[in-house]
Amino acid sequence: MKGFVFHGPGQASWQDVPDPGIKEPTDAIVQVGVVTICGTDLHILKGDVPEVPPGTVLGHEAVGEVVEVGSDVRTVRPGDRVLMSCITSCGRCRFCREQRYGQCRDGGGWILGRLIDGTQAEYVRVPHADLSVHTLPGAVRSEDAVLLADIFPTSYEVGVLNGQVRPGDTVVVVGAGPIGLAAIVTARLFSPERIIAVDLAPARLEAAHRIGADAVADVREAPAQLVADLTDGLGADVVMEAVGVPDSFELCTRMVRPGGRVANIGVHGRPATLHLEDLWIKDVTITTGLVDTYSTPTLLRMTAAGRLPTGHLVTHAFALGQMEEAYDVFANAAETGALKVVLGEEPHAQVAVPTD
Amino acid sequence: MKGFVFHGPGQASWQDVPDPGIKEPTDAIVQVGVVTICGTDLHILKGDVPEVPPGTVLGHEAVGEVVEVGSDVRTVRPGDRVLMSCITSCGRCRFCREQRYGQCRDGGGWILGRLIDGTQAEYVRVPHADLSVHTLPGAVRSEDAVLLADIFPTSYEVGVLNGQVRPGDTVVVVGAGPIGLAAIVTARLFSPERIIAVDLAPARLEAAHRIGADAVADVREAPAQLVADLTDGLGADVVMEAVGVPDSFELCTRMVRPGGRVANIGVHGRPATLHLEDLWIKDVTITTGLVDTYSTPTLLRMTAAGRLPTGHLVTHAFALGQMEEAYDVFANAAETGALKVVLGEEPHAQVAVPTD
Repeated sequence: MKGFVFHGPGQASWQDVPDPGIKEPTDAIVQVGVVTICGTDLHILKGDVPEVPPGTVLGHEAVGEVVEVGSDVRTVRPGDRVLMSCITSCGRCRFCREQRYGQCRDGGGWILGRLIDGTQAEYVRVPHADLSVHTLPGAVRSEDAVLLADIFPTSYEVGVLNGQVRPGDTVVVVGAGPIGLAAIVTARLFSPERIIAVDLAPARLEAAHRIGADAVADVREAPAQLVADLTDGLGADVVMEAVGVPDSFELCTRMVRPGGRVANIGVHGRPATLHLEDLWIKDVTITTGLVDTYSTPTLLRMTAAGRLPTGHLVTHAFALGQMEEAYDVFANAAETGALKVVLGEEPHAQVAVPTD
Repeated sequence: MKGFVFHGPGQASWQDVPDPGIKEPTDAIVQVGVVTICGTDLHILKGDVPEVPPGTVLGHEAVGEVVEVGSDVRTVRPGDRVLMSCITSCGRCRFCREQRYGQCRDGGGWILGRLIDGTQAEYVRVPHADLSVHTLPGAVRSEDAVLLADIFPTSYEVGVLNGQVRPGDTVVVVGAGPIGLAAIVTARLFSPERIIAVDLAPARLEAAHRIGADAVADVREAPAQLVADLTDGLGADVVMEAVGVPDSFELCTRMVRPGGRVANIGVHGRPATLHLEDLWIKDVTITTGLVDTYSTPTLLRMTAAGRLPTGHLVTHAFALGQMEEAYDVFANAAETGALKVVLGEEPHAQVAVPTD
């Protein structure tokens, strides 16, 4: 089969790789239907995620059809259309029993496309299949479902729920890429008073406005002052970091009100400065987290019912074999305007029109 | 009257000052019976709290007798023995209505001995008296009650409750001064599996052990490894910072398990490094806070019932006029073994025997 193989920093290619087979009785083999590329994949290509061994097929977000299951698999069978989540889970370890599947101690957590071959391929082996794939309702299009493999549960769990967004809150989202935009969509579910999106790129701020932000701010134009002006000088109730760089995190801690919450969603490669000389007295709560995907079944139900507007995020679609081209478009988002790119199933060329 | 006046960094004296009088109809004037010195007072003397104006009487922890009240005061009257809390509260602003009295927006919060004259004097004016002093049950000794003006509610609210200590938890307390020791006492109320105290000073580690720590660790002897060894390599459920320096905070973030909580209690004068490159994926919650004293009535009831062993913390007692000597003993804790020093009422010389 074909797969997108990481060969070390800066090097990867769509190439022949061996077909995956059942290794454990709890495995399933899935034929990939629709797959996407994550900002984290770009971090891997840059060498920021050193634990990824050269030779690994990348990708941790896909929808496909089960073609084979191990002898212990009970909840899915060949022919089922399933969502492959970025998180796999053994279901038995201490953390899985607490629904902290992202911290699974027994061969789960975020392993696809990181510690084992991932989803950017024609076929993929999914360990712990019973708890790691989600059967899809017929009403959910694969192109929508694939956004629930990572970005929607990540933004919802690690941003909105950790940040405890509540009705009437002022919410700031720093970073209006796919994760930030999904945070805006899912924050809206809690009826905040206002959501303010902060980014560098006009196109992303425009997307943030379209998807539900009440105000947008260029990061270079004193966003903390804007937030202070809107909140009687206090700051925001909840600030979410959706970039993953120290400056952005530090900006978040300057924009939060006394008693407020900073929810870090970004993947960081470097330490940040925590201004405890200001913050010790401010009653601030800061959270970090890897997604657990405990919310995925709920988000899937909402998508099936049309209650989660996931579609606005997909800007480009490709055939599966156009993987390298798709990476180019996604990696150069500043020029291409790419938010989320999807590959597979219906081999359109590029469909770059976000629906409104 | 006499009071202990701050004259600028490194300069303070016990001297004549004008008697305080009622300024607002919500004020009370209290004759100080027993007063204590806080580590924060030492920070002020070092110049670490620049907002304190020279000429200010220091002190924010005392017990005394009401001698005069303004026309709007309803809940206390002359003759009442009261605890003066480090936090005063208007009771009407947004934060007071949320029990975040420490963040009071209308002339409350931590103001005694910081923005207005404090309790290290023969008399003190307490603003917003109805909500800022606590009438003392007869069963509570003043020497015990004074520990509930700051350190016990601070350790309990900002450490134990923010850290969400639960039965069966492994709890680490970094810093075994009065705040850290009070954190150990109040953490015990939630039946953790073990409490590990970390400090530099053998005498403080001994005090920690005596007061309820199950294990103690010298900060120079790989405490993070000890914690890992005791927790199957995972780290502690809750880590409390009770020192207020960057190294100590950073140590806390290295000792917490995935999904665990770091509760900062320390007063910090400098920023710390937050290792987001490790922490982003670890589901960690970090809290900061100034005490609100919402727990003070409960802690007073428990003290009256003999359910809070506050007495172990007082190592030295002085007459009120020995303020300068008491500061010397407290500031040189490494030599004197001082934990908490109290002044007033019964003019003992030095009573340096902690009861066991």
